[in-house]
Amino acid sequence: MGSRYHGYQTQNNEALTVQRVLQNALEGFFGTPLKITGCSRTDAGVHAKQFYCTMEGDIRSTLPPEKIPLAMRPYLPEDIAILSARAVGEDFHPRYMTHHKEYEYYIYNAPILHPYHAGRAWHCPVALDVAAMDAAAAYLVGRHDFAALMAQGSVVSSTVREIYYCNVRKEGDLVIVRVAADGFLYNMVRIIAGTLTEVGKGKTVPEAIPAILASLDRRKAGPTLPPEGLYLNRVVYPNDLIG
Amino acid sequence: MGSRYHGYQTQNNEALTVQRVLQNALEGFFGTPLKITGCSRTDAGVHAKQFYCTMEGDIRSTLPPEKIPLAMRPYLPEDIAILSARAVGEDFHPRYMTHHKEYEYYIYNAPILHPYHAGRAWHCPVALDVAAMDAAAAYLVGRHDFAALMAQGSVVSSTVREIYYCNVRKEGDLVIVRVAADGFLYNMVRIIAGTLTEVGKGKTVPEAIPAILASLDRRKAGPTLPPEGLYLNRVVYPNDLIG
Repeated sequence: MGSRYHGYQTQNNEALTVQRVLQNALEGFFGTPLKITGCSRTDAGVHAKQFYCTMEGDIRSTLPPEKIPLAMRPYLPEDIAILSARAVGEDFHPRYMTHHKEYEYYIYNAPILHPYHAGRAWHCPVALDVAAMDAAAAYLVGRHDFAALMAQGSVVSSTVREIYYCNVRKEGDLVIVRVAADGFLYNMVRIIAGTLTEVGKGKTVPEAIPAILASLDRRKAGPTLPPEGLYLNRVVYPNDLIG
Repeated sequence: MGSRYHGYQTQNNEALTVQRVLQNALEGFFGTPLKITGCSRTDAGVHAKQFYCTMEGDIRSTLPPEKIPLAMRPYLPEDIAILSARAVGEDFHPRYMTHHKEYEYYIYNAPILHPYHAGRAWHCPVALDVAAMDAAAAYLVGRHDFAALMAQGSVVSSTVREIYYCNVRKEGDLVIVRVAADGFLYNMVRIIAGTLTEVGKGKTVPEAIPAILASLDRRKAGPTLPPEGLYLNRVVYPNDLIG
């Protein structure tokens, strides 16, 4: 859970990051400097249900990799866990080799935020039209230039990505936006969720999505929703790379 | 969410309870001493997804009851919320008039506790046989003397209760015990969950449940599981009392 962290990746400062906590714990355990590389640079406050890292260094331990999760458990806070570990080839890169990633954005949609969902979903007290949101989501699927759905000021060589699926469902009082793509631009999922929420509120219609995309203009899309609703849900590698 | 609290009900000490927080916030808002009566005395660390209280006092506010939840929101911490409010008759009692209550006990059943469930489920790393647990649960349904499933040393006029339903299901890595009854003895749900877990581990069989009940002996049943997995899920009143 990312609530306490300034994102995954350590910057050139002393901020608490998931990478820093992992690295300190692993270096202490293995007694050697390690290079930790993550599959994604998640933002401050964002959660990850699944996340892959590699660990490289002069490790002389004879502990089998599959025993690392249990062995490391006492050295990690309860909001970070190593769920599994395995050996990979030296050419494996957790970020460059992902086939696709799936995110979910949780919107708690009832007048008063239920404490069970506090810090774990964004609270939208206005009733949302989930069917309209799902219809709008369908327009995002496919290979598009998503410049309109990227945080302004980001620098990237190409803003073209392929969304494999994007849908919106209701589970009790939660409205959940699910989206998978070969890659995501900065803040893209939070802007997608914000744009779909505008549709859910009736401020725009599903049929307006193609024109928003075609504009390549961030200002035409909806707001960037806050990090507490965002989950990196699944990271998928080609089958021959990782089981 | 009950993690931070010494239960619902204020005792004769300064411990932080849900009742104390509610009472302080409501008395501050309405500017008058209030009597707050809850539907249940939940234990320290136990959660409630639904909970009813009455508030009595010399309230001169003209605020309609249905506006109380939103008005009170800024005065409550994020782990306590007033979800709805309405006027009830003077003879209404939130505890004595319940028709039945439903509890759920969440068991996180995988080798390593996923941070998403930390503090919100009890962690059982040993694989559980959910079908056997569900078969065992069926033996608990009905009107029985549940003395064997009550914390030792509790004083109560009768240990006979009626369980309306009791079942065990799997949702991802969670094993969820659900039980509804006209009333519950002290620690009864946590002992039921502990006893069913013994069945799930293969330490006892579903067919042993009737003999455990008939023994009226707490020592024959399984352990009392910790509070963090327990949720008061639903409190049901007769239809003519509350909608």
